[in-house]
Amino acid sequence: MAKKEPKQLDELFHDTLKDIYFAEKKILSTLPKMAKAAQSDDLKKAFEKHKTQTEGQIERLEKVFAIIEKKPQGKTCAAIVGITDEGAEIMDEYKGSPALDAGLLAAAQAVEHYEISRYGTMKTWATELGLTDAARLLGQTLEEEKQTDADLTEIADSVVNQEAEAA
Amino acid sequence: MAKKEPKQLDELFHDTLKDIYFAEKKILSTLPKMAKAAQSDDLKKAFEKHKTQTEGQIERLEKVFAIIEKKPQGKTCAAIVGITDEGAEIMDEYKGSPALDAGLLAAAQAVEHYEISRYGTMKTWATELGLTDAARLLGQTLEEEKQTDADLTEIADSVVNQEAEAA
Repeated sequence: MAKKEPKQLDELFHDTLKDIYFAEKKILSTLPKMAKAAQSDDLKKAFEKHKTQTEGQIERLEKVFAIIEKKPQGKTCAAIVGITDEGAEIMDEYKGSPALDAGLLAAAQAVEHYEISRYGTMKTWATELGLTDAARLLGQTLEEEKQTDADLTEIADSVVNQEAEAA
Repeated sequence: MAKKEPKQLDELFHDTLKDIYFAEKKILSTLPKMAKAAQSDDLKKAFEKHKTQTEGQIERLEKVFAIIEKKPQGKTCAAIVGITDEGAEIMDEYKGSPALDAGLLAAAQAVEHYEISRYGTMKTWATELGLTDAARLLGQTLEEEKQTDADLTEIADSVVNQEAEAA
């Protein structure tokens, strides 16, 4: 039997693209639940805004699939399943607690950082593979995710301060 | 039956401390496998250095447990289990491939970003809870994790360039 050739960077890129495509779709279905659960209006709005943004990010990923001539397809991403499960647990355990928003923010920032690491990696690989247009698309989403994380940090500081004042 | 009081920020802090304590221990047991698998000497050294650093970070977490007068105890963190499982899958699927190091780097950066989000969150909460010493300890680890992520990005760029030259 012929020895299988080891997989190369283009396959790693395709595998990781499927991973983040699954992750974005999972996030898209989770955000409305987080927006509904959020107590602060700022946080509700941030989740709603990020939902719209996520739709655009999914479209970009579909363009990247087209660039590498593959069908858009997700592959279960255990990391995002774990992160969103933790978020769901917090929504359940901290329902009615003043700490709920702090917990939702923590879950959302864990999601953002996962995405920042993935898009950073994929942008580097796209450049290496000579996929200039794909690198540009992935870079656009990377900047959006960084901005979302910064926005969430700002809300986290204000949520925590409001709680302190109310206590 | 009396209605249970909703959990508060101090409990969320304790829950998340247990989560990151589990995560650090999981990372500590995973790093030697990643160091062994890595092809580039720089990456091997980076994983070995981060192992030593992780030991110090676990000690800091134990100090934080002491500050809040709790016993150091982990709680299964589904997110880090998912991230490290994906890393293990890459070590398996890309064994013998020139893309292995790129995959290991991606897994390691996903781990770093998870930690960056957690330590950022916990530092904010510690400050809010008036736990100044805990905030300082968590802030020290946060800076280490950011530096490790920056070091990994540097290695990622050089690994990818070396592959391009070898191709």
